[in-house]
Amino acid sequence: MNALTVAEYTHSLGLQAKTASALMAKAPAAIKNKALLALARLLREQTEALQVDNARDLERARAAGLAEPMVDRLKLSPKVLETCAQGCEQLAAMADVIGEIIGMKQQPSGIRVGQMRVPIGVFGMIYESRPNVTIEAASLSIKSGNACILRGGSEAIDSNRALAKLVQQALTEAGLPQDAVQLVQTTDREAVGQLIAMPQFVDVIIPRGGKGLIERISREAKVPVIKHLDGNCHTYVDDPCDIAMAVKVADNAKTNKYSPCNASEGLLVARGVAAEFLPQIGAVYAAKGVEMRGCPESLAILQSVAGAQLVPATEQDWSEEYLAPIISVKVVAGVDEAIAHINRYGSHHTDAILTRDHMHAQQFLREVDSASVMVNASTRFADGFEYGLGAEIGISTDKFHARGPVGIEGLTSLKYVVLGEGEVRG
Amino acid sequence: MNALTVAEYTHSLGLQAKTASALMAKAPAAIKNKALLALARLLREQTEALQVDNARDLERARAAGLAEPMVDRLKLSPKVLETCAQGCEQLAAMADVIGEIIGMKQQPSGIRVGQMRVPIGVFGMIYESRPNVTIEAASLSIKSGNACILRGGSEAIDSNRALAKLVQQALTEAGLPQDAVQLVQTTDREAVGQLIAMPQFVDVIIPRGGKGLIERISREAKVPVIKHLDGNCHTYVDDPCDIAMAVKVADNAKTNKYSPCNASEGLLVARGVAAEFLPQIGAVYAAKGVEMRGCPESLAILQSVAGAQLVPATEQDWSEEYLAPIISVKVVAGVDEAIAHINRYGSHHTDAILTRDHMHAQQFLREVDSASVMVNASTRFADGFEYGLGAEIGISTDKFHARGPVGIEGLTSLKYVVLGEGEVRG
Repeated sequence: MNALTVAEYTHSLGLQAKTASALMAKAPAAIKNKALLALARLLREQTEALQVDNARDLERARAAGLAEPMVDRLKLSPKVLETCAQGCEQLAAMADVIGEIIGMKQQPSGIRVGQMRVPIGVFGMIYESRPNVTIEAASLSIKSGNACILRGGSEAIDSNRALAKLVQQALTEAGLPQDAVQLVQTTDREAVGQLIAMPQFVDVIIPRGGKGLIERISREAKVPVIKHLDGNCHTYVDDPCDIAMAVKVADNAKTNKYSPCNASEGLLVARGVAAEFLPQIGAVYAAKGVEMRGCPESLAILQSVAGAQLVPATEQDWSEEYLAPIISVKVVAGVDEAIAHINRYGSHHTDAILTRDHMHAQQFLREVDSASVMVNASTRFADGFEYGLGAEIGISTDKFHARGPVGIEGLTSLKYVVLGEGEVRG
Repeated sequence: MNALTVAEYTHSLGLQAKTASALMAKAPAAIKNKALLALARLLREQTEALQVDNARDLERARAAGLAEPMVDRLKLSPKVLETCAQGCEQLAAMADVIGEIIGMKQQPSGIRVGQMRVPIGVFGMIYESRPNVTIEAASLSIKSGNACILRGGSEAIDSNRALAKLVQQALTEAGLPQDAVQLVQTTDREAVGQLIAMPQFVDVIIPRGGKGLIERISREAKVPVIKHLDGNCHTYVDDPCDIAMAVKVADNAKTNKYSPCNASEGLLVARGVAAEFLPQIGAVYAAKGVEMRGCPESLAILQSVAGAQLVPATEQDWSEEYLAPIISVKVVAGVDEAIAHINRYGSHHTDAILTRDHMHAQQFLREVDSASVMVNASTRFADGFEYGLGAEIGISTDKFHARGPVGIEGLTSLKYVVLGEGEVRG
C-alpha cells in the first residue's frame, strides 16, 4: 500500500468510484454494451494467461491444506471463463432499463408525475472464494450504470487482480472510466471495515458468503446492506395433491443439488396423504442416501421403507440449513399448521406448496412470509436466471429495497419526474 | 413504567408489534377500511375531549416559554382534527395494494414468475411536535397492513396518548389487534435508542424532524432508516424559456410558503436570459421582502430593482436551506453548469428546470441526481398528495428502497410468486 494507510487507500477508492458513478449513470446503452462485449472478448483471448494467475491461487490453497472441493471453487477453468464471457454477452443483449419512465399520470393540478429508473450509484461487494464472482459483479455493475468496489477473498487475490485488470481494459476500450470497477488490492481485513463505513461514497453493500460474514457486516455497516442469510427452505405436500408429481418435485427440491441455498431442508406432509406419499418419497431418498430426520408420526410410516436412514428429529432440526443429503420430515394437520411451521422455523427464503386445492394455494402464497413462495414447483427454481432477471448479484432474504433474487433492477432506484407547463401550487 | 426498565418495555412493544403485524398482513381490505372509518368517526365524536387533552400540552409549552409559532404546531384545532378524519376516509376509499401481483410471466422452464405486494412488517416512527402525525402514521400503517410503533415528542405526549387511544379503539371495533398501532408511553429518551436497535422486531425506522435528529438516528440505527434530510431545492431558468412563466413559477417556488422542504432555496439563471428575467423576478421578491444573496453578475443586474434587499452570496450560501424569505441567486452559462451546481451544492431533494428547449429538459431530467426532477413546474409540488400517492409518511432523500415522497407503496415490499404444474429443475 506504499505510504497510504488502509483507511486512506479505501477512501481514495470511494472517491474515485463516486466520481466514476456520475459518468456511468449517463453513459449510453451502446457504450455500456461495448464494454461488456470487449470484456467477453478479453476473457476468451486471455484464457491461458488467466490460468497462470489462477494457478498461483490454487497452489497457495493446496499448500495451505485446503480441501479439494474448496480448491475446486477457486478454479478458473476454460469452461468457467467461457460461462463468464457468455454472461457478459447475454447482459449486452438485454434491454437497458436505465432511463425508463414508468407510471406517468396527470394529476389534478395538471402536472404529469412518473418515475425514472436510475442507478443506485456505488455498491460495494464483499465475497469469498469463487473468482468468477468478480466478472459477474463487474458486468452487472456496468450494465446497470453503477460504479462498484469489489473486495474478493485473499485466497483468490491473484485471479481477481488479473480479472479486474481485464475489466478495466474493457471499460477503457469503450471510453468509460476505469474506476467504474475497482478491486480492493490489499488483503488487509481493515479494508472491509472501511468499505462498509463510507456513506459519503458507497450507497449499498452486498456481501456474499457465509452467514457469519454477512451477520458481521450487517452489524457493523454504516450503509444499507442487501443481506442473504440462510436458506432453510420447505416443501409442503398438501392434501389433496397429485402424489406422483409431489414425489418428483420433493425429490428434485432436495436432491438436484445439496449445497445451494434454495434446496429444500424440510419436508412437511399433510396427514391425509402421509400414508400414501411418505413411503414413495422415502424410497427415493433412501436410494439416494438422503438421511431423514422425522417426527414420530413420519418415522412410524417410513419404518417400512427398505434401506431408509431414519433419525428422530430434534427441535433444532426444524431450524437447520443442512446443505447436505439430510432432510427433516414432519407430518402436519394441514395448510394452517404448515404455514405456521414455515413462518416460525424457516428463514424466509423460499417455500413451496404442492397441492390441487386452489384455496390452499392462495392462502399459502399470501401468508407464507418468504422472499419466494411457490405452488407446484421445486424450490430449486429460486434463482435470478430461472426468474428471467438475466443475471443475479445475490438473493436477498430482506424485505427492504430488494427481496429474493436480485438482478439489475435491484441495483437501481426510481426518481420522480414531473412534467408541467408552468403550473404553480395554490 | 412500573417495574419494567425502558429496555424491557420497548422490547415488549416490539414483540407485540411483530405478533400484530402477522394478523395485519392477512387482514382483508374491508376490515382495514372499517378501522379507518371508525377512526374518522371517533376523531369527530371526540373533538372536544381531544382539545382538553391537547390544552395540557399547550399550557406546558407556553409555561416553558415556547415561541407562539411552535405552540401553534402543537394545536389540535377542530379544523386539524377534521383534516385528519378526512384523511382517514380518503385512505379507506383508496384501492388496496396489498396482494396485488405484478409482472407475472412464463419462463422457459414453464414456471410463471411474478411479484406480490406485501407489507414491510413493523415500522417505527420517531417524530416531533405536531400530534396529527400520530393519526397520519397510524392510518397509513393500517391501510398498508403493517404494524407500527410511534414515538412522538414529549411536548405532545398528552395529545398523542389521547389520539393513540382512539386509534386502538378503532382497531378493536374492526376486529383488528390493537397492538397494530402502539404509542411509546414513556418520554424517556432511552426508548428511542432501544426502538432503533431491535432488528428482530422492527423492519424500518422513519424519523421526521430536524436534520440533527435524523442524522443521529441514521448513525445509531441497527435497522434501515428512511431518511429525510434537508431540502436545498433549486429552480433553474434556462435559455430559451418563457419569461412570464418563469417569473410565475420562480415566485411560487420561493414564496408560496417559506418553511416547507420543497421551497426553492436557490435560483439559477442562464446568462442569455438574465438581463430580461432577473429584474422581473427581483421586483416580485423585493415586493414580498425576499432577500436575494447573489453572485456578482446577478447583483449587477438586480441593482436596478427598487427596494431589492441584495447581499453578496458567500460559498456557504450555495449549500444553505434557509426555510425563510431568502434565496440565493447565481447566473450560470447554461444547463451544464446548472446541473453541475445542483449536483454539487444541492441536497438531492427536488430541482426544476424552466425551459422551452427539449434537449435541455431531457438532459436535466436524466442528470440531476435528485429524488424529484421537474420541468416547467414549481418545486413546491414535491408532495405525496400532489403526486397522487394519497398520503405521505415522509419524503426520502435516500436512494435505497424509497426515494422522494413515500406513500403506501413505500411501506410495502414485493415477494416472488412462482406458479408451476410440477416443474423440476434440470
